[in-house]
Amino acid sequence: MKVPLLLLTTKWLTLTAFALLLSFNVQAMHPNLVITQTDVIAMRNAVTEPGSFTTAYYALKARVDQQMPFPVIVPVPKDGGGGYTHERHKKNYQLMYNAGIVYQLSQDKAYAHYVRDMLLAYAKLYPTLDLHPARKVRSQNPGKLFWQSLNEAVWLVHTIQAYDLVYDALSGQDIEKIESELLRPVALFLSEGQPSTFNKVHNHGTWATAGVGMAGYVMDEPEWVEKALYDLDKSGNGGFLRQLDELFSPQGYYNEGPYYQRYALMPFVTFARAIDNNEPQRKIFQHRNGVLLKAIDTTIQLSYGGLFFPINDAIKSKGIDTIELVHGVALAYSLTEDPGYLDIAERQGQIILSGEGLKVAKALDKGLAEPYQFNSLAFGDGSDGKQGALVVMRSELGGHQALLFKPAAQGLGHGHFDKLTWQYYDQGNEIVSDYGAARFLNVEAKYGGRYLPENESYAKQTVAHNTLVVDETSHFDGDVEVGNQNAPTLNYFETNQFGAVASGEIHTAYPGVKLERTLALINLVELEKTIVLDVFDVGASGAHQLDLPLHYLGQLIDTNFELSVNTKQLSVLGSENGYQHLWLKGCGQPEPGLAKVSWLNDNGRFYTLTSLVKGDEEYLFTQIGANDPNFNLRNEQAFIRRVKNKKQHQFVSILEPHGEYNPRKEYTLDAQSKLTELAYTGQDDLALVKISIAGMHYLVAVNQSAEGAIKRDFQYQGKPFSIAGRLAVYALNDL
Amino acid sequence: MKVPLLLLTTKWLTLTAFALLLSFNVQAMHPNLVITQTDVIAMRNAVTEPGSFTTAYYALKARVDQQMPFPVIVPVPKDGGGGYTHERHKKNYQLMYNAGIVYQLSQDKAYAHYVRDMLLAYAKLYPTLDLHPARKVRSQNPGKLFWQSLNEAVWLVHTIQAYDLVYDALSGQDIEKIESELLRPVALFLSEGQPSTFNKVHNHGTWATAGVGMAGYVMDEPEWVEKALYDLDKSGNGGFLRQLDELFSPQGYYNEGPYYQRYALMPFVTFARAIDNNEPQRKIFQHRNGVLLKAIDTTIQLSYGGLFFPINDAIKSKGIDTIELVHGVALAYSLTEDPGYLDIAERQGQIILSGEGLKVAKALDKGLAEPYQFNSLAFGDGSDGKQGALVVMRSELGGHQALLFKPAAQGLGHGHFDKLTWQYYDQGNEIVSDYGAARFLNVEAKYGGRYLPENESYAKQTVAHNTLVVDETSHFDGDVEVGNQNAPTLNYFETNQFGAVASGEIHTAYPGVKLERTLALINLVELEKTIVLDVFDVGASGAHQLDLPLHYLGQLIDTNFELSVNTKQLSVLGSENGYQHLWLKGCGQPEPGLAKVSWLNDNGRFYTLTSLVKGDEEYLFTQIGANDPNFNLRNEQAFIRRVKNKKQHQFVSILEPHGEYNPRKEYTLDAQSKLTELAYTGQDDLALVKISIAGMHYLVAVNQSAEGAIKRDFQYQGKPFSIAGRLAVYALNDL
Repeated sequence: MKVPLLLLTTKWLTLTAFALLLSFNVQAMHPNLVITQTDVIAMRNAVTEPGSFTTAYYALKARVDQQMPFPVIVPVPKDGGGGYTHERHKKNYQLMYNAGIVYQLSQDKAYAHYVRDMLLAYAKLYPTLDLHPARKVRSQNPGKLFWQSLNEAVWLVHTIQAYDLVYDALSGQDIEKIESELLRPVALFLSEGQPSTFNKVHNHGTWATAGVGMAGYVMDEPEWVEKALYDLDKSGNGGFLRQLDELFSPQGYYNEGPYYQRYALMPFVTFARAIDNNEPQRKIFQHRNGVLLKAIDTTIQLSYGGLFFPINDAIKSKGIDTIELVHGVALAYSLTEDPGYLDIAERQGQIILSGEGLKVAKALDKGLAEPYQFNSLAFGDGSDGKQGALVVMRSELGGHQALLFKPAAQGLGHGHFDKLTWQYYDQGNEIVSDYGAARFLNVEAKYGGRYLPENESYAKQTVAHNTLVVDETSHFDGDVEVGNQNAPTLNYFETNQFGAVASGEIHTAYPGVKLERTLALINLVELEKTIVLDVFDVGASGAHQLDLPLHYLGQLIDTNFELSVNTKQLSVLGSENGYQHLWLKGCGQPEPGLAKVSWLNDNGRFYTLTSLVKGDEEYLFTQIGANDPNFNLRNEQAFIRRVKNKKQHQFVSILEPHGEYNPRKEYTLDAQSKLTELAYTGQDDLALVKISIAGMHYLVAVNQSAEGAIKRDFQYQGKPFSIAGRLAVYALNDL
Repeated sequence: MKVPLLLLTTKWLTLTAFALLLSFNVQAMHPNLVITQTDVIAMRNAVTEPGSFTTAYYALKARVDQQMPFPVIVPVPKDGGGGYTHERHKKNYQLMYNAGIVYQLSQDKAYAHYVRDMLLAYAKLYPTLDLHPARKVRSQNPGKLFWQSLNEAVWLVHTIQAYDLVYDALSGQDIEKIESELLRPVALFLSEGQPSTFNKVHNHGTWATAGVGMAGYVMDEPEWVEKALYDLDKSGNGGFLRQLDELFSPQGYYNEGPYYQRYALMPFVTFARAIDNNEPQRKIFQHRNGVLLKAIDTTIQLSYGGLFFPINDAIKSKGIDTIELVHGVALAYSLTEDPGYLDIAERQGQIILSGEGLKVAKALDKGLAEPYQFNSLAFGDGSDGKQGALVVMRSELGGHQALLFKPAAQGLGHGHFDKLTWQYYDQGNEIVSDYGAARFLNVEAKYGGRYLPENESYAKQTVAHNTLVVDETSHFDGDVEVGNQNAPTLNYFETNQFGAVASGEIHTAYPGVKLERTLALINLVELEKTIVLDVFDVGASGAHQLDLPLHYLGQLIDTNFELSVNTKQLSVLGSENGYQHLWLKGCGQPEPGLAKVSWLNDNGRFYTLTSLVKGDEEYLFTQIGANDPNFNLRNEQAFIRRVKNKKQHQFVSILEPHGEYNPRKEYTLDAQSKLTELAYTGQDDLALVKISIAGMHYLVAVNQSAEGAIKRDFQYQGKPFSIAGRLAVYALNDL
């Protein structure tokens, strides 16, 4: 848009907010969104020499070159998600973006003209469009090119960047046409045209504000930027900054969990970079103590073996190599130059063609990567960080272990009813598992590739998780609105030389029932191993049936109590709330003492859950797959510890990894649990757990007091002890 | 043994056989079994410089050094397999062998003395021993140090080599004691003391003859070598050469399958090397057209993705990196210098400390490895190669595929009742699967780590395989003796530019029933993909129920016919012969035409079996796990095509790999089968199959005639065709 400078100045002066005086640079140079003129010079220079950036460039160029000979196809919108016109328009914005990059690096106008031709085709089509024919009935956010405006906003985020990249190769006439017939109408449609979506504090709103705000930078519409940042009415009630304030916790945790966090990251990362390039004085990366960088880092921390912890609706094969996080890591490295991010970039194996990507590529080529530090951390949930927390505990002692504990909030519509659940990983594998989402993404035969009905009827239900079910009903009676209002409390989290411990509780999952769980990942240094302690306290005003499931991956090896197994016929365990999907394979009622269940995971290691039982716990062995007429569910195993007619119950158990099954080398070591004693004593606010394992005797002490970790002395079996933090482990043999 | 040369000479002259005049070198040098004096010089030289051999040497030395400070422990035999004394004696022979190697390379006598001390401890113990207390009642082959003499023979094979390695560091007195109190008695016990085992044409016999024969070389007892080679009575009815003649087919296939083949290889490889080093004029490696080398090569060919095809009793994680095959590959490379063996050695990742191992290490260090060529091959079964065959077909067109077809003999006690079964692999994964053995090796809680009862009741039964079951009974009515007498026939096998095809038949699996199956792996070059054609003809004198199971790995995605699924209750499919272990999940009866079942494997690819049905085939969907009170079985899936009351039936189907499921990158391609037409016509001896797939029309012709592949002309739908071999594929679009 070629506007005389004077006119531009006048226009700016009509704006009043003082921020603008500070903030807006007169813009005459393109590109200047994620990729700047300075970046382009460095990138052009880089591709003259070999290196991973150059390799990535030529790979992209080859992909674009393959498409260029084909005519531009901009079909009239017709199909919904997954259909032809939908997929074609998605492909188009990616193509335009890629061709724009190649144009800037090659300076070959053929690429710019390809983008121009496609933009002109869109400019011809767009004014003819009404709302999309496949939009959902009564949808609040229909698109025109796409069935929902979310896709249209994603289209704009890419297309505005492509336009910016080829701007200097366009004639004034083309610019006029493309801006007035296409880009301005789209930006207006997504902002003024859909206030409820644009102002919404939700990731759909983030895409819309990112697209419109970036369009504001490119087309010199500072007002659009203001609205994108502060709501259409500039009140700050909505807009990008409010989204940054609300959608992440102060630690950078996104309420829906890592699977959706990585998706939500993309527009944040993109728009923030464009803001910083155009108006560095807004200090967007410092906003809220650098919450955006924290959000990127948190997404990495919430992974194991390269895959995200699959809490809530999550497809389990999604991990840190997702494209959104490739962008995120490039940004994080460029902001911090922390060599740990290079480690992640290396695992991602993908170089972004941008100034940040170049920085990563150069550093990788120089071998600057250092191991990224995965830590034990508690991520506060909710915008204030106080709606519970998601806790990760890790240990490298005798394994490569991670424990995920979830006294976190519901997490909106994609949340599962799994308060205080846990998952456990070792030696690269999932051991105590979470089903994740019931969905075969984009597989037409499986319910059109959408979330399966079994996602509601099984995967979201409490019994599908490793946490307590009262009377065969799910938390909050399966009502997501109630769930959203009622988060658990993280009582404490601490990590010290003895391991890591956390405790959470919730009183609102069931009326009149208090659930409190303490989980610890405990280092037994003498044995070079780490065990898990799980203490789950239930207290209720009335008597209930209490079920505590444990979903394990592997083959059941042994139990130390008799099982009655249904060998001729299998029946369904229950009738609703997920129970209707479980076959009852067998059950047993261990005598008072220690009840053991051992299984063998595919990683070649044995795992035993030893529980302290009083004779009132029944063990039900189940397999997923009942009421599954379309074979939609994976047939995984669990056992459920059940007590009936109880007001109070305490489930105490230890998970112990042991031994090795190595049929390749034909040996098997320690297939049997070595835990021989487990005793629990409460002493005021101290939980004292005596453990005898492999000839060692340990006392584990957990300080549960409200005032927190202050030094305390206590006696156990006549001997004096002292605990300074929340967790302590004493090797009694040494005393 | 220091014997004056004259005495030695006299002794030799008392021997009569003319072979001996040719064969026996006067021996004065140690070591000279697998490792020779010449080898030692080269090896000592090698470890002065860095390289993979040196790395392997120092790794072994470190392991030995770790053990050396501990006192020698030679316990009085007490425990059976897996027990303490059993495992200790196993550990001891390995330790002696390793320390012997380190002595030769380091020339540090401390290592020799360690071996000496252990040998002397054994020499003290051995004369006091009676038969092992844990021997099986009425066992034909009890040991003294071990519960069975097989282990004792393995002990001797290692120990005699260790003795040979440290010989030159021993005093005359020690030699006298060790030979007279230990090595001679053991050798005599394993030969004259157990004629039935020693003379047996069986791998137990191979270990015994290898141990005794090598003892003969070391202790100058040529008579022992003769007996080891030709039976105790030197008749040739038993002995090592007879074992080489009988236990392998002319192509080098071992009757029990690759899992046991790799185990059986070890004594063959070891003793043959010792024979060749001592008596090269016996030309042991040329014996029977080099059958030993063929046996090594066959073991490699019978693998996929590094793991052995799990036919018969086989633990599925066993593969080419097994120590026996590390030795085998070192020998094969040293004999042939074929750089393909270096590829395998590289995958094995282990260097043997021997002359052969050095050769491999040097070649690997020089980067001489070239890809090992996995081929489509038919391995004749039985000592004459005519007891059927095991057929492997491979393709790299649009995948990495292998099809195993088994018109092979029963394979003795470890054989399964699975005549004409098949398995199929693609993209690194098992797709159409075989259960393998039901066993958790050495896991005490799982039936003492032995073969589980379910190995007999399920894994060996016909229904556990992908082949035909008549009237819910297993082949040969499950009688192994009958099975051993009655092998299938391989009608033909051919590989050409169109793919590979084989046909096999058997008339004796069921009385009055002929089973004939033709399987082809067909390259569809235009589509860049490979499909499987399966034609199974059954003909019987009376009417029967015919079941054809297909065991698949993955998640069922779809069927193109309606299923009636048991959602509330599961029942057992049958009462015996493996059927009692199958839950019936659901069933369906497709209309005449094409019946499709699609599943998604963990490799991210879809697979569809399309069958040509006439409305009389019922599909039963099953899961393993019924009548399994100890959770011993893996809960895998199958579907069984069933027809009832039939004298004749032809099952015709195509297995088609298609598409990709990539939730990480969020796309799904071609989740649906593209096969739209399938028609079968018999024309004299020609099987003609018309296939329409992804818009291409193909005619597949298979020449089934007895006279074999001669050029033939034929007409199909009025057009002329010509076939020169067994298999031809015509793209009809081109006509």
